[in-house]
Amino acid sequence: MPHTTRRAGLCATLRQRELDALLVTDLLNVRYLTGSTGSNAALLVPADPDADAVFCTDGRYRTQAGSQVPDLERVVDRPCDTALLARVGGAARIGYESHHVTVDRLDALAGAAPSAELVRAPGLVEEQRLVRDDAEVEALRMACAAADRAPAGLVEHGGLRPGRTERGIARELEGRMLDHGAAGPSFESIVAAGAHSAVPHHRPTDAVVKAGDLVKLDFGALVDGYHSDMTRTLVVGRAADWQRELYEPVAASQAAGRAALAVGAQVGDVDAAARGVIERAGHGEQFPHGLGHGVGLEIHEAPALSKAGAGTLLPGMAVTVEPGVYLAGRGGVRIEDTLVVRAGAPELLTLTTKELVVV
Amino acid sequence: MPHTTRRAGLCATLRQRELDALLVTDLLNVRYLTGSTGSNAALLVPADPDADAVFCTDGRYRTQAGSQVPDLERVVDRPCDTALLARVGGAARIGYESHHVTVDRLDALAGAAPSAELVRAPGLVEEQRLVRDDAEVEALRMACAAADRAPAGLVEHGGLRPGRTERGIARELEGRMLDHGAAGPSFESIVAAGAHSAVPHHRPTDAVVKAGDLVKLDFGALVDGYHSDMTRTLVVGRAADWQRELYEPVAASQAAGRAALAVGAQVGDVDAAARGVIERAGHGEQFPHGLGHGVGLEIHEAPALSKAGAGTLLPGMAVTVEPGVYLAGRGGVRIEDTLVVRAGAPELLTLTTKELVVV
Repeated sequence: MPHTTRRAGLCATLRQRELDALLVTDLLNVRYLTGSTGSNAALLVPADPDADAVFCTDGRYRTQAGSQVPDLERVVDRPCDTALLARVGGAARIGYESHHVTVDRLDALAGAAPSAELVRAPGLVEEQRLVRDDAEVEALRMACAAADRAPAGLVEHGGLRPGRTERGIARELEGRMLDHGAAGPSFESIVAAGAHSAVPHHRPTDAVVKAGDLVKLDFGALVDGYHSDMTRTLVVGRAADWQRELYEPVAASQAAGRAALAVGAQVGDVDAAARGVIERAGHGEQFPHGLGHGVGLEIHEAPALSKAGAGTLLPGMAVTVEPGVYLAGRGGVRIEDTLVVRAGAPELLTLTTKELVVV
Repeated sequence: MPHTTRRAGLCATLRQRELDALLVTDLLNVRYLTGSTGSNAALLVPADPDADAVFCTDGRYRTQAGSQVPDLERVVDRPCDTALLARVGGAARIGYESHHVTVDRLDALAGAAPSAELVRAPGLVEEQRLVRDDAEVEALRMACAAADRAPAGLVEHGGLRPGRTERGIARELEGRMLDHGAAGPSFESIVAAGAHSAVPHHRPTDAVVKAGDLVKLDFGALVDGYHSDMTRTLVVGRAADWQRELYEPVAASQAAGRAALAVGAQVGDVDAAARGVIERAGHGEQFPHGLGHGVGLEIHEAPALSKAGAGTLLPGMAVTVEPGVYLAGRGGVRIEDTLVVRAGAPELLTLTTKELVVV
């Protein structure tokens, strides 16, 4: 059970921090540690490796929790955080997720466990989540596979053609991901045709694709709570010289970024490796965002691969590499993969071709 | 501009509370007060009605904010909350949303405005949002209209037939809402066939509809950020006597709940009016949830129409009325409308028939 292993890892951290237990209230952290997917839950994880964690949810999720969290004692009550804290006796040191608990909610926690010492313990589970275990990587693989099938089917069935709206293409992409096992899109899909492709985060409109357009597709699938993230930029009809000249340095930058994903690399150096290629091509000013980000139970997680980012790559981190160059009013190119950092070369999870596809 | 009026209403509240300004960090509250839809923003609203509010977002939303929030000074910085607070000079009393600001974030706020007095001010905007203004009701009307078209089209085109999966029906419902102006579903649609209809919050599966099944559809559309919410329960093929006998008291309960939606009514009394009908039919134990909830920028807002709920209905509140009776292992019926409380009868926004439809 990956959840048992994850909780054991957290226990070790709690002992290092001299905490008696951690009250986990961030729902993604609860999911990571238990498998629960309900919209209301909390978990009390004792530092003592021989004591079991206690899970709490409300009556709506009683049956679901029985099948998702069969291995833990389950309290059914509401609100969950105070219900769990009320079980703590004596002068225990209880960590709480101070990056998640609100100022008002802390009062309620203190009231529920008056003899406990509540200690700020931000980001302990998130730190553990930085490195994906095998079950997480497998979910990411499935999420990336569902996404890979979507542009393939779109192109094969003529879905990318002049006259189609960005919105229509986005719906087809999302439908195809659902057909291939996605629970949903992992974020609002970006379909940006022509000059719109120069807007980094364009929302699909009723604008239609025209012959000669660059079309940027940035989308992902959600599988078992894990998010994939991929961008491809295609040309409809025939690629003009300026489009090929724009594509080439972005593709080279993306390859350089992937090659720089080595265990022990500084995240700023990874960004610099990719950014340098685009700067040398004279487009540095037109690459206005970071190179990539961690991806997992959230679409944007640590680490940030950016100039300002700090930290070192560890084996098992899952990140995107997504340089882009945007020529306002003309068009833009972005190419993005989801990868896992490995001791040798990184593992590429999004397998769709990165050659310039002309449809 | 509804946003100007909304900010003026908030200013009056701030003066009553003897605050010099309110730092608004909850994104839905920022949207309500400005129209901004970006994923990172904050707003500083001064109590002085002659001073303008100041809006902040980050570089990704610079262009978007220019068109969505043209009437306010816009700061482009990150993080937004501290960027706004850093502009506060002197010993001002600044309210902050203590039900939204985390324990850790409060430290950052205090550091950004060391001479200000930071005062807890939870729920001020939410209290104002309880009563919908005309622009909000219009958005809710459009969201309900988009949802109304979905089951109509589904039934008309034979989409509800034996052999179809719950998941397939859910996708068609959601597709039809998109066709009629929805930006998306307002929550994960519930399609529950046969015995699944007895599970209040069933998630669609690959189970197929069979002749004689009750099919419960609980879904809604999102338009301009506002959520509609509607449930209808239909029968496929031919309705058995027990199904008609189950449907009748739920429909009568729902009508009683709607009739009880009067200005000045206690929310507990509205719940009781509907619940009494089901209790007298001998199904009180099989109606395990509250009667309804407020609906607006969130799918679940105050007021809760439930036994334990407190408060009084005001004109302009938008609520659902959704009694249900669930016979485990056999089937369930729920009927739900979205309505606006008015001085006379409530305004019904979901217009789909509540007669028992047999398809």
